[in-house]
Formats: sequence, structure tokens, C-alpha cells
Amino acid sequence: MAEIDAIAFDADDTLWHTESLFQATQKRLEEILDQYAPHDEVAAHLHETETKNIGLFGYGIKGFTLSMIETAIELSRRKVSATDIHEIVMMGKSMLDSPLVLMEGVEDVLEQLGRDFPLCLITKGDMLDQQNKIDKSGLATKFRQIEVVSEKDTATYRMLFENFGIAPERTVMVGNSIPSDVAPVLELNGYGVHIPYHVTASFEKHDDDPQHPNFFRLERISQLPDLIKDL
Amino acid sequence: MAEIDAIAFDADDTLWHTESLFQATQKRLEEILDQYAPHDEVAAHLHETETKNIGLFGYGIKGFTLSMIETAIELSRRKVSATDIHEIVMMGKSMLDSPLVLMEGVEDVLEQLGRDFPLCLITKGDMLDQQNKIDKSGLATKFRQIEVVSEKDTATYRMLFENFGIAPERTVMVGNSIPSDVAPVLELNGYGVHIPYHVTASFEKHDDDPQHPNFFRLERISQLPDLIKDL
Repeated sequence: MAEIDAIAFDADDTLWHTESLFQATQKRLEEILDQYAPHDEVAAHLHETETKNIGLFGYGIKGFTLSMIETAIELSRRKVSATDIHEIVMMGKSMLDSPLVLMEGVEDVLEQLGRDFPLCLITKGDMLDQQNKIDKSGLATKFRQIEVVSEKDTATYRMLFENFGIAPERTVMVGNSIPSDVAPVLELNGYGVHIPYHVTASFEKHDDDPQHPNFFRLERISQLPDLIKDL
Repeated sequence: MAEIDAIAFDADDTLWHTESLFQATQKRLEEILDQYAPHDEVAAHLHETETKNIGLFGYGIKGFTLSMIETAIELSRRKVSATDIHEIVMMGKSMLDSPLVLMEGVEDVLEQLGRDFPLCLITKGDMLDQQNKIDKSGLATKFRQIEVVSEKDTATYRMLFENFGIAPERTVMVGNSIPSDVAPVLELNGYGVHIPYHVTASFEKHDDDPQHPNFFRLERISQLPDLIKDL
């Protein structure tokens, strides 16, 4: 078994469900805008708008909601009603207020691994969104460190691991996104464990799997303790 | 001169102008909604909406923009046009993208105090907003610690000072808000320096000045080095 200093986890769609909520909301937007554009055009325009806005809005529900409103106004050629926009605002608020659903087995896995390793949570997005979710999850006490960052790239991970006092090459990062959770940590010669979620945010899609001896893929988080033993 | 471990600064409306941007945007909203309600009613309804939404949205421009949209829809009884809502969305984006204007003398003050004391920045709001502003300010290197938090209360300051390894009773906090910057630090027996901004966000208004020997008020930040010498 390899020497491991710490195990770090992504949160959204790794410890709890998030993306399914975004996609359900997007489906409803497609219905609202049915009279102005076909569903796939709504999806494409929304993705384009989100991408254009990411530098100003960052990741998170408030920015997503503003991008939905922009999409509705543009696709309807400014014909969409205030009532429809009101529904979109309420959809955003309902997302912010929605109950958190943990992935199956998460509590056991953290309990078990937490006995042998310091655990960290590294998540990106709106700080208040993320803090609310961490509170709702009841998992905060499982983690020695919790960090909300605005972008998960190699520079961010290098700085965080340095702050935590852990060596990247003895750190395992677990998450559902190759570009945000796995690739940057592999670049630092850490371990990257990919656990795909059944849907992937358009920003987190990737083409090829990383070619690295420390890259692993699991189907579900309950398989993590066995993998860690075998490292 | 008292023994001081560190000097901590608020950012928005202490190091750089922010609230004037919010208030200018609100003025424009009042004009847009002119046909539906008198200006003071728009202001009151917006404040009410922001207060109601603060738990979900937190502080920041994106939440403010969504609250403006809600206000427009409600005050117009759902008659406001998509074109007007589009302008509100664009007002939010323009706020996010607006250049940062530093308070007069800030760079000199930080340069001067930074020679003798570790400086920290403690600000609340959307993390991405705040990081963008810190980047634009060019002041990041002046600070040993930069923290973006979601609420500035006594518990937050206690935790931050502990993390920084500084004693609250030997720490000076400088800011434009009594409830967010001054009162919680006085409660920890630190020093609280209030530098009022010419306008105050509706959430940051206070009734009475704190009664505490460590409470000080300055007119402008350039007076800070002399005050520190006299502590």
C-alpha cells in the first residue's frame, strides 16, 4: 500500500447530487420556451450563454439563473413574458433551496476512510451556495479542511496542498470531473480517482482519459476504500 | 504604542468604491420602473426583496441583479417588458465588469503599514466577484492573508484570527461597516476602526456607535497610520 497523506474529495456530483437538478431545471426552461425555439436549440443557446458569462458569473446557481433569463429573452426575441421570467427566477430560488441528496454510501465511506486518513473537501462555485450545501449535508465534521475555490486548476491544487501541508504525490483526489478533479492532480503526480456521474455539466466534459499510472476510475464511491487499500 | 499583531482590512467601500455603483444602478432601476411606481417605492421594494433573498443569495452583484428583476416583475404586476429585464441583466453584468476605483491614498497607507505589521484582507460576498476585484486592485501582494467569507460575525472573526495565529486583542480591523467590521472585533476585545463611506448599504446601517475603549473613527484611510502609532 502506497503512503498516503490525505484524501481530498470534490463535492457536487461526487458526494451529493447537483447536476441532475441543473438538468431538470433546464428541461423546464425548454418547455417554457417551447413556442420560441425547439428544445435542443434552447439547450445550445443556454450553454453558449453560460460559457460567455462564466468569467463574470463563475459557477453556481445564481449565474445559471441569470443565463437562463438572458437565453429566454434572446431566443424569444424579447417577447417572453414577465410571468415566464418570474418562473425562471423562482426556479433558481427553488434550486438554491432544494434539499440535498447524498450519494449512496457516502457517509460510510467517509467514516471508514476518516479513521485512517485526513480528509479534505475541495469544491468550486458560489461560496454561499457551497456552504449551504455543506451545512445541509451534515458531513462538515468529517473533513479536516474544507475549501471553496473559484477554479480547480493545477495552480489552485498546488497552493491548497501546500497550505494543508500535504505532499501532492501522496494525495488522492476523488471527483466526477476529469478536467477539474483528476487531470490537475495527476499533473502534480498525485492520485486521481474519477467517479463519473450519470450526467456531466457541459463545462466538465472531456475527450480522452488521462494516460497516467495514478489514474483510476470507479463506478461508485463505495468502491473507494478497497481502491485506497490497493494503491 | 500598544502591541499590535496584525491589521485587517475590509475591502468594499474601505479600500475601493463599491456601494456607489450599487446605488447608481438602483437609480437607473427606479427610472426604468418610473411608469409603475414612484422612485422611493422602488427603493423600498428592492430593499425588502434583497432582505428576503439574502439567505439564499448572499451578498453580491448576481443576487442583487436577481432581486432587481424580481422587484421589476412584482412592482409592474408582471407588465414589465423583456427589453427592460434585459437592461437589468446587462446592468448587473456591467457592474461585474466595471473598473475598480481605489480610495485615495490606499496604496501608500498599505505600503507604509505593511512595513511594520502583517496585513490581512477580510471581505464578504461572492467569491468570484471578490477575487476579480482583488485582482483588479493590484493590492493582493500587500496582504499576508486574504479571506472571502459569507458573513462577518464574531464567530467568523474568532475562527479567522485563530487560523492566522493572531490574538484578537492585539488585532486592528478597519472598515466602513459598524455591524460587519467593527462591532464583532470589539466583542473579541480587538480594535475597531470605522471609516464611514459616503453612502451605506441598507444592510450595513447601524443605530448607535459602539461604546468601547478600542473603538475609533476616521474620516479617511490616510489617517490610519497616525492612529495606529497612537494606539
